[in-house]
Amino acid sequence: MSVLVVGSMAFDSIETPHGRADRVLGGSAAYFALAAAVFAPVRIVGVVGEDFPEEHLTALSRSGVDLEGLQRAAGKTFFWHGRYHEDLNVRDTLEVQLNVLGDFDPRLPAGYEDTEYVFLGNMHPAAQSEVLSQLKQPRLVACDTMDHWINENPGELRKVLERVETVVINDSEARMLSGHDNIVRAARAILKMGPRAVLIKRGEYGVFQFSDDSTFVVPAYPLEDVLDPTGAGDSFAGAFMGCLAAGGANGDEGLRRAIVYGNVTASFTVEDFGPRRLLTLERGEVDERYRRFVELTRFHD
Amino acid sequence: MSVLVVGSMAFDSIETPHGRADRVLGGSAAYFALAAAVFAPVRIVGVVGEDFPEEHLTALSRSGVDLEGLQRAAGKTFFWHGRYHEDLNVRDTLEVQLNVLGDFDPRLPAGYEDTEYVFLGNMHPAAQSEVLSQLKQPRLVACDTMDHWINENPGELRKVLERVETVVINDSEARMLSGHDNIVRAARAILKMGPRAVLIKRGEYGVFQFSDDSTFVVPAYPLEDVLDPTGAGDSFAGAFMGCLAAGGANGDEGLRRAIVYGNVTASFTVEDFGPRRLLTLERGEVDERYRRFVELTRFHD
Repeated sequence: MSVLVVGSMAFDSIETPHGRADRVLGGSAAYFALAAAVFAPVRIVGVVGEDFPEEHLTALSRSGVDLEGLQRAAGKTFFWHGRYHEDLNVRDTLEVQLNVLGDFDPRLPAGYEDTEYVFLGNMHPAAQSEVLSQLKQPRLVACDTMDHWINENPGELRKVLERVETVVINDSEARMLSGHDNIVRAARAILKMGPRAVLIKRGEYGVFQFSDDSTFVVPAYPLEDVLDPTGAGDSFAGAFMGCLAAGGANGDEGLRRAIVYGNVTASFTVEDFGPRRLLTLERGEVDERYRRFVELTRFHD
Repeated sequence: MSVLVVGSMAFDSIETPHGRADRVLGGSAAYFALAAAVFAPVRIVGVVGEDFPEEHLTALSRSGVDLEGLQRAAGKTFFWHGRYHEDLNVRDTLEVQLNVLGDFDPRLPAGYEDTEYVFLGNMHPAAQSEVLSQLKQPRLVACDTMDHWINENPGELRKVLERVETVVINDSEARMLSGHDNIVRAARAILKMGPRAVLIKRGEYGVFQFSDDSTFVVPAYPLEDVLDPTGAGDSFAGAFMGCLAAGGANGDEGLRRAIVYGNVTASFTVEDFGPRRLLTLERGEVDERYRRFVELTRFHD
């Protein structure tokens, strides 16, 4: 089964203590799609400008991403420039040019409205709602969001949260959205807003999943060389959704397995700059690291 | 088999966003001993002043802690006063009175030198070395340390590290000691200083264990009500060592089991102020939460 992602496509300029990358392929939809494509066919709905090079489209297509829903608008592609601190958990945004993303009106091509697994990437909650209204009978809709929308568009965001099944969100944003510092309380408060499950991304500390039926806590894959954390969260979400779409089973066991696959896939992303590692990532490599992760975390019950 | 802990005994005055406790029983040796005593007989070597109340001694004895090595010196007991921020990972030390701890000269009572499981709590590295010289054939010696000794007595600390089997240390102190931000690199660098294993405590994010043979990463038990984080690290170490002493098996499986027991025991400590919860903690409660932890972390391999 296919996965649909609606979100940003970007040029990213990234600086970390380990180097830099200029105007590389970026955006939540790009990272999500490349990670999900390791597991299942992927459809992107997004927008790029006239400056978006053919090579990026070719790379996405080659990875198994359907680009029928990718709009090309007059103007420039969304641009983000950020710099990470020595502590890679902290970053400064140096420049943002919204460009064609400012007027993005997500339209699903014919046939896309039947997609069963849908991810609403971080974007204006009104745009997320618009996608929701175009869907027929999705099996699982998950969404992400960020501090900007939590602060500036809380009412519209709440409407989205009432309509999605799963929220995938950073720990700092979970705290902001819920008003609770404690992660369990934060997750419980977000559940009350509508979704049936909350997935809280904790960066190098892993993931916390919370629903009425189940709590799951899992560390991140420990890495010796983190070159660039950009896109880790979207890669996590992509692999998570891709794994669910491929497996079909959404029971607790399938969910946990998909979360661990998300974790493991994100660990590849951060080992190189931008989405470079994802472009060549094979399912076999992910499976191998999954098995290694089992070894790293198992203990006797 | 018994566990020996050498470390500080204190009065703590603690302020958190959830309340305060004045001049309660504290110190690394007290927390360690109460946690270890859930699993095995414990011996304390430490020092208190003339102001140390009989009730604390009775409480420790009743929990199964042998106090033969507890010195009572002329003067006042070590005193610490701290305040936690809304984010409980951050605290300010408001006052420290070293008092009798300043002249602490750890002497092992006859018979103690045969103890097989020994923990050198956070104290002057010269005092830690002195304990090491009094031991006969310990099976496992672990030590803790803190920023103060890392910065002020690096040479003496290095000598201790050359002689212990395991280091149990906070993540921030592991970074300081090693000069590496990355946790895997930090652990690898500390191994090079002598110990065969490093246990890095990550607070609410769990524990990372690293040795030449094995890497183990485990999240913390997720809690909804953290009242006071004081003593969590020492409770972890106490339960870890107590579990090893009780189990006898130091193989990889036994080590991981002891780490998880340490994690789970520390989760009780932080649910009340000071060591209050530890004073009534029963092995059955810890076992129950261990089983719950298995449920919270298991996934299909």
